[in-house]
Amino acid sequence: MNDNDTIKAVLNEIRDGRLDVDTGLEKLRDLPYQDIGHTKIDHHRKLRNGFPEVIYGEGKTPEQVSEIFKHMQELNNVLATRVSADMATYVKSCNPDVIYNSLGRTLTYTGNKISYGKGKVGIITAGTSDLGVAEEAKVTCEMLGSKAFVISDVGVAGIHRLFDRMDQIREATVLIIIAGMEGALSSVIGGLVHQPIIAVPTSVGYGANFSGLSALLGMLTSCASGVTVVNIDNGFGAACAACKIAKLID
Amino acid sequence: MNDNDTIKAVLNEIRDGRLDVDTGLEKLRDLPYQDIGHTKIDHHRKLRNGFPEVIYGEGKTPEQVSEIFKHMQELNNVLATRVSADMATYVKSCNPDVIYNSLGRTLTYTGNKISYGKGKVGIITAGTSDLGVAEEAKVTCEMLGSKAFVISDVGVAGIHRLFDRMDQIREATVLIIIAGMEGALSSVIGGLVHQPIIAVPTSVGYGANFSGLSALLGMLTSCASGVTVVNIDNGFGAACAACKIAKLID
Amino acid sequence: MNDNDTIKAVLNEIRDGRLDVDTGLEKLRDLPYQDIGHTKIDHHRKLRNGFPEVIYGEGKTPEQVSEIFKHMQELNNVLATRVSADMATYVKSCNPDVIYNSLGRTLTYTGNKISYGKGKVGIITAGTSDLGVAEEAKVTCEMLGSKAFVISDVGVAGIHRLFDRMDQIREATVLIIIAGMEGALSSVIGGLVHQPIIAVPTSVGYGANFSGLSALLGMLTSCASGVTVVNIDNGFGAACAACKIAKLID
Amino acid sequence: MNDNDTIKAVLNEIRDGRLDVDTGLEKLRDLPYQDIGHTKIDHHRKLRNGFPEVIYGEGKTPEQVSEIFKHMQELNNVLATRVSADMATYVKSCNPDVIYNSLGRTLTYTGNKISYGKGKVGIITAGTSDLGVAEEAKVTCEMLGSKAFVISDVGVAGIHRLFDRMDQIREATVLIIIAGMEGALSSVIGGLVHQPIIAVPTSVGYGANFSGLSALLGMLTSCASGVTVVNIDNGFGAACAACKIAKLID
Amino acid sequence: MNDNDTIKAVLNEIRDGRLDVDTGLEKLRDLPYQDIGHTKIDHHRKLRNGFPEVIYGEGKTPEQVSEIFKHMQELNNVLATRVSADMATYVKSCNPDVIYNSLGRTLTYTGNKISYGKGKVGIITAGTSDLGVAEEAKVTCEMLGSKAFVISDVGVAGIHRLFDRMDQIREATVLIIIAGMEGALSSVIGGLVHQPIIAVPTSVGYGANFSGLSALLGMLTSCASGVTVVNIDNGFGAACAACKIAKLID
Amino acid sequence: MNDNDTIKAVLNEIRDGRLDVDTGLEKLRDLPYQDIGHTKIDHHRKLRNGFPEVIYGEGKTPEQVSEIFKHMQELNNVLATRVSADMATYVKSCNPDVIYNSLGRTLTYTGNKISYGKGKVGIITAGTSDLGVAEEAKVTCEMLGSKAFVISDVGVAGIHRLFDRMDQIREATVLIIIAGMEGALSSVIGGLVHQPIIAVPTSVGYGANFSGLSALLGMLTSCASGVTVVNIDNGFGAACAACKIAKLID
Amino acid sequence: MNDNDTIKAVLNEIRDGRLDVDTGLEKLRDLPYQDIGHTKIDHHRKLRNGFPEVIYGEGKTPEQVSEIFKHMQELNNVLATRVSADMATYVKSCNPDVIYNSLGRTLTYTGNKISYGKGKVGIITAGTSDLGVAEEAKVTCEMLGSKAFVISDVGVAGIHRLFDRMDQIREATVLIIIAGMEGALSSVIGGLVHQPIIAVPTSVGYGANFSGLSALLGMLTSCASGVTVVNIDNGFGAACAACKIAKLID
Amino acid sequence: MNDNDTIKAVLNEIRDGRLDVDTGLEKLRDLPYQDIGHTKIDHHRKLRNGFPEVIYGEGKTPEQVSEIFKHMQELNNVLATRVSADMATYVKSCNPDVIYNSLGRTLTYTGNKISYGKGKVGIITAGTSDLGVAEEAKVTCEMLGSKAFVISDVGVAGIHRLFDRMDQIREATVLIIIAGMEGALSSVIGGLVHQPIIAVPTSVGYGANFSGLSALLGMLTSCASGVTVVNIDNGFGAACAACKIAKLID
Repeated sequence: MNDNDTIKAVLNEIRDGRLDVDTGLEKLRDLPYQDIGHTKIDHHRKLRNGFPEVIYGEGKTPEQVSEIFKHMQELNNVLATRVSADMATYVKSCNPDVIYNSLGRTLTYTGNKISYGKGKVGIITAGTSDLGVAEEAKVTCEMLGSKAFVISDVGVAGIHRLFDRMDQIREATVLIIIAGMEGALSSVIGGLVHQPIIAVPTSVGYGANFSGLSALLGMLTSCASGVTVVNIDNGFGAACAACKIAKLID
Repeated sequence: MNDNDTIKAVLNEIRDGRLDVDTGLEKLRDLPYQDIGHTKIDHHRKLRNGFPEVIYGEGKTPEQVSEIFKHMQELNNVLATRVSADMATYVKSCNPDVIYNSLGRTLTYTGNKISYGKGKVGIITAGTSDLGVAEEAKVTCEMLGSKAFVISDVGVAGIHRLFDRMDQIREATVLIIIAGMEGALSSVIGGLVHQPIIAVPTSVGYGANFSGLSALLGMLTSCASGVTVVNIDNGFGAACAACKIAKLID
Repeated sequence: MNDNDTIKAVLNEIRDGRLDVDTGLEKLRDLPYQDIGHTKIDHHRKLRNGFPEVIYGEGKTPEQVSEIFKHMQELNNVLATRVSADMATYVKSCNPDVIYNSLGRTLTYTGNKISYGKGKVGIITAGTSDLGVAEEAKVTCEMLGSKAFVISDVGVAGIHRLFDRMDQIREATVLIIIAGMEGALSSVIGGLVHQPIIAVPTSVGYGANFSGLSALLGMLTSCASGVTVVNIDNGFGAACAACKIAKLID
Repeated sequence: MNDNDTIKAVLNEIRDGRLDVDTGLEKLRDLPYQDIGHTKIDHHRKLRNGFPEVIYGEGKTPEQVSEIFKHMQELNNVLATRVSADMATYVKSCNPDVIYNSLGRTLTYTGNKISYGKGKVGIITAGTSDLGVAEEAKVTCEMLGSKAFVISDVGVAGIHRLFDRMDQIREATVLIIIAGMEGALSSVIGGLVHQPIIAVPTSVGYGANFSGLSALLGMLTSCASGVTVVNIDNGFGAACAACKIAKLID
Repeated sequence: MNDNDTIKAVLNEIRDGRLDVDTGLEKLRDLPYQDIGHTKIDHHRKLRNGFPEVIYGEGKTPEQVSEIFKHMQELNNVLATRVSADMATYVKSCNPDVIYNSLGRTLTYTGNKISYGKGKVGIITAGTSDLGVAEEAKVTCEMLGSKAFVISDVGVAGIHRLFDRMDQIREATVLIIIAGMEGALSSVIGGLVHQPIIAVPTSVGYGANFSGLSALLGMLTSCASGVTVVNIDNGFGAACAACKIAKLID
Repeated sequence: MNDNDTIKAVLNEIRDGRLDVDTGLEKLRDLPYQDIGHTKIDHHRKLRNGFPEVIYGEGKTPEQVSEIFKHMQELNNVLATRVSADMATYVKSCNPDVIYNSLGRTLTYTGNKISYGKGKVGIITAGTSDLGVAEEAKVTCEMLGSKAFVISDVGVAGIHRLFDRMDQIREATVLIIIAGMEGALSSVIGGLVHQPIIAVPTSVGYGANFSGLSALLGMLTSCASGVTVVNIDNGFGAACAACKIAKLID
Repeated sequence: MNDNDTIKAVLNEIRDGRLDVDTGLEKLRDLPYQDIGHTKIDHHRKLRNGFPEVIYGEGKTPEQVSEIFKHMQELNNVLATRVSADMATYVKSCNPDVIYNSLGRTLTYTGNKISYGKGKVGIITAGTSDLGVAEEAKVTCEMLGSKAFVISDVGVAGIHRLFDRMDQIREATVLIIIAGMEGALSSVIGGLVHQPIIAVPTSVGYGANFSGLSALLGMLTSCASGVTVVNIDNGFGAACAACKIAKLID
Repeated sequence: MNDNDTIKAVLNEIRDGRLDVDTGLEKLRDLPYQDIGHTKIDHHRKLRNGFPEVIYGEGKTPEQVSEIFKHMQELNNVLATRVSADMATYVKSCNPDVIYNSLGRTLTYTGNKISYGKGKVGIITAGTSDLGVAEEAKVTCEMLGSKAFVISDVGVAGIHRLFDRMDQIREATVLIIIAGMEGALSSVIGGLVHQPIIAVPTSVGYGANFSGLSALLGMLTSCASGVTVVNIDNGFGAACAACKIAKLID
């Protein structure tokens, strides 16, 4: 049932006298989220844009994250990203069922069975140093109900390593390409395959890399048509976009 | 028939003695493109990444564009982007069947019937000034075989205009959101719908807009998960990405 | 009594022989501030631009801050901003009456009763991570004699949370909108209300956020007319501006 | 009558059976704006955020501007900004009652009497070259119903010129300070007066000015508390903000 | 004869009484260049760093360029770069033996036979639009005594076009790789060959290309070891470096 | 007679009853400048900071410049900078005694004899293309009463040209070093001489020059101690600083 | 035996029936690298581009580096760069034969005898603080089979120190010039010698150095023709390029 | 005796047979500096550009600094800047006569009496937080033989504090103005005095200050003619320039 139907239903109830105006207003307001003081948990988001709200760990205290977790895990599986080891330790001490992935820096609760769609997300990295971002993307995909696989260290400076994996790459419904430095991998793959491609620039590098700017600009100006880009190091956002796309084939 | 199969077929022919090694090499080399001196036309690209090569008009002479057109239109429909009015006049004088779209600055030849897929691309603009980019995207979608519609002037400073069109927006398979200035439209729509979203920052604005930088950074850091971004003013690239996604449902 | 009157009064006294020239010069010089060696405390500022001088903690030593506090609190309430926990501990050990707000990182002395004006400052944040800046703004407003309230976590990616609070938002005399990432919240609210809006970009985010640059540029190029902007993370400055505005209705 | 009341009224009519659901939906949709194809004119905006919609001339064709003018001037006074001399000539040829201000590059229709509030906007410029921006601000203020005056060429390199005008400056309800180069004028005035100050950086200068960046950064980091800033050369936006503030005293 | 020998010879002559001190000073001063008022022509440069001085046309008047040409062509072949069509017409009217290359924007005088070394410079471009820079490089190489060939339009988005030319590419002594947009071509070739590579970023592109910045940063952070970079669009500089390298094998 | 004395004198007159308070205020106000509507001419500036006001031509209309000229030349010699050829023609048509320097883009009126100080300003340029900036500096020096000489085209890529002129360079009281590209000339000369050095970065160059940024940053980070820098292409500002220094030896 | 020959040989074997198609595919795939899970070691690279793969330490864990080392040192000498002291200690504890260079931050294993070519790489630094980068370059050269020598602290602010070493500098086959701040050293040397020059900007400096940007831009815009540039602080990359060049004379 | 004379003397000795050529070369080489391995100490610099070499502490090891100190203090007074407390402790343990200034972060040895010139350097800071830079400037001035005084905390937001000190400011021969944030202080003072002004931007501030960029750009584009600028936080460089100027009056 989508939002529009909900509103129409409420209007119908009011017309039919089954609902008074003030309760109608209340109803529209109450459903979407739950206010726990510092944060408004948006249980309704799944209905609205297809995904549950996800906790962004950076800039929050361990106590805040733990409390949000507690409220959310009553209703849903829960995902938190950008979680430091210290924050993870604290949250686990209060919520023993959560699992910490130290490479991807994610914290997950999966008390409810995830049902996977038919689409498959292929995650490709240019170098070993990009694996943290790839892991964040992979965990996110799985929490959002899409299978995912990772192929790492196939950067363009040794392009035969990439060609060797093209068969596997071509099996994915949608691709996430993760690369730092000049970010050329997305251009090369973009010229070889027909799937949608989401490129993630990483901050791997130094000097003229300017914290990921070189890869970001490189991917945005890619000579391969149809490559889209997310923020630097944003494995999570790439996974969200990839899953929305992968679900189209269900 | 994909590339891998082609290569395997050639290897098989060689094994069976039906093909000598040098002709085998030639064969692999000849198919993909046609060399017309200054440019290598890539007829093969459609097989490889799903789309025919497209002519990027800027930085080319009218003569070059006209010649590429002539070679390509023997085999395919043809699309050229970033075509100035003067260049269009010249090309039309040599290739009378081409059509110029002055708002989107595209030049097209559609001698072959386009067969459209089931997916539909929704193109949304924040302001009237973004219409040129929207038009480039729309023409590109249609040339690539996806139906597209444009909803314009629904920027966030008058958000009820947007809400009024949400039903129509929700009918698209994939959305292209085009906005200049702070680029906020993609965040707001991203929070309201479940479709894949491709955001196009435009250079509309002045001062701290820095030729599109403000919208670009705004879209890349969007608080709505799963928004992906293409280069500033790149309606063509957004359309390529959108069509790849839209074709998944066929 | 404003500056001009003071000067005229001194000129009059000199004319009438009630004051000699050198004493006149001295008089004009002595009133405004008090020199404590490394710093010139500007007691006069309140007369001149409506607010007492405020201590900016960063780049000062705990000893300097403590000394300035001591001198200022003889005459006025005192506010220090950007105070680290360590600095606060030191200053409290010497000046036991001060209060430390760890979220907003402010240190205050309020020995004198604050008389509040009729205006009310509404402080709105996009996310939980923006609360520190909001708290700095709130404490500053109260020290400057304006009531303030905070509404947090109503960012545009879940826009119904914002709409739900519009009634309360419309009660404010002036609004401070605090947001990181793309800073879109000020554009959306700017299109919905008629109050003056001061936008504060925050450094919350990563990658293409470039330490607050994305939100700063987004707010400066806001498509909503009449949004003004202060420095990144500058809750204090926004509060000063808001209070100047709020006092107009007294 | 504000938006909330309108919606409540519609809900009440539906409850009472005086209105069916579909007409109710239609009603909410019809009021706010008028669709003329390429543009949605937002007649409703005045109710929502206190000002009528204004036409931004840049990036529009003279024909589009003329058409929007025609539709809007049936109901309201109309203001267009960033209008080139050529565009003005065209619009005047179709709409003879409009007035072009070549310094401020504004086009106005004032068929309806403007009723002015009590507040007064003081517009101060550092140099003669900033006068275009000042003029845009002044015309905008007057169209929005606030009296305004301009004091020009009182930059800080000859600070006695400024001091000489302080009496007049202190009479304004709110100040707009316009300066290029290092933008120091807002800091100096900010230390001398108690009114709200809106600073407009201009692109006047060369070299390290970087098209207004030096003044923009200077004003954002002003050592005078409570200075707020709008986009480079944005006299219009500053005037909108100033008028919202000036109307508080009515 | 290098500089050191010249100086030593002069010292020896002084010691032997064959030269007085003042004439010695004069001698050292006179050889290297010829002063024609606005410009000091550096005939000596060839001895010092292996190449004759070259005229940089931009920012000079046609008259200045023509005059420098006249003085230099008495002794040497002459090369001018960044010469506009208008400037070329003027110079040719005074110096009929010069040749203008409109694509590469070079003006040359080759009255003296050029003797070519054994090395060969391979110039590779990613797209048709990079040909102007390639032509500037090719003309420069030939003027400096190195044979050069151009392979164009083999960008990474259609990587089989590149692989098809690898045999020819491997025949060069040193490679100049010219690419705009993300500049990925130098990384891919850098991973496939063992020759020295000089990468030239071009300003071909728009938006996030930022006038060549994306290619520049991409090439500087190339994941292929040993790629060196010159300024944006600097075909001349790349050719100078390539010729210095190519001459090592003579 | 300096400002302080003037103020004290006025105070004394008031004390003695020789002046009433209002006339006193008037007196202080009247002397310094003359208001001609759009511009306040600052005749008093010479007393205050040693130089007459100078007209900055860019962003002013020919009519404005001509009018300012007329008012100023009644009392003083006059200098205008950044004057285009068209503006010069207009001003000369109204003020026939002015002289236009097309290379330096200055307009001067020298009806009063200039008396020169003992100091001498040496102006050194790296290349022929920097001569325009050098000429602006030279004219400014002479208008401000300092003799100046120009040595051009002695950039560091042919360092013997520089060494040859060191004797002449060492005769100056203060040096202005003008260079584009990497701006290295100021570092090299800074290591060889003991005079004060003012470096002027120029916008000569392209690509990574970023309109003078490379020379600006290079000069600011010069490894030679004691080099100071002015804005890009600011020959005028460098001359002002140089003349202030040169006058110290009088 | 180069790649092309290998592929032709495989094709020949297939034609002759000595090899079946699947084994042929396998063969091409197996040779080049060895997959150790997180990383694909590229033993084949030496054949392809003349150098063995090198380990980039930053962003890898000590465990990963140690494991890669173990696999690579069975077949080759091994070089790792950007190795912190802690990482070095760990790797040495597992691989006792490795040697750590703390100034250059390199880790090397040289179990196999290195055979040096005839070319010599001259490494010149502007200041003492650039020595770390110089050391990284020197170690890399030696691992890649080129002799190298370092001349330090000959920056342009004391240019006689440089001139004193010119004889030694002229003996090198190719030069690496390392400088921070304004990076002028490469321009000065570029004007004095005829060898190929690779410039390395360093992040030595502060303020307007912007982490090496000033030197980077300075070197890219060098007025000496034929200077090429690598990334900031990239001693390793400069050495790779220098060795490729030095080997040309063998 | 200057460099030129020295060279001429050597040439004369060779002519007269009193010196053989090789010894002559040696002689020119030996005087200027002393090579202690990692660093070349430039004892000769005082003759060449008026000041002894100064040690820049950052990026050097305590051992290196201590060793350089030891060698230099045999002949001269010594100054080291950017010395951390730890480095100072180490150097003092080896060289007990050195003095550490913790605010200015300088280390000095003054075994030889300094003889002061007649000029006086006035150092003015905008805020208390700029005092570290001021102290570095003051110590440097004194080491270079110029008296200096500091006036602090007279920023433009409380401009009467500045006016109160104008008499003292006008006594200086040359002024160093130190300010962070918008750097407006140099413009205001530049409009009030006739002395040469050297402006030092500081990194004091946050957000849009971008580590001193706002003050740097502000000072470079100052509307007061004749202000020159040094690198961010570069109190040392400003002092060098100021002393060169101050010495002109001796």
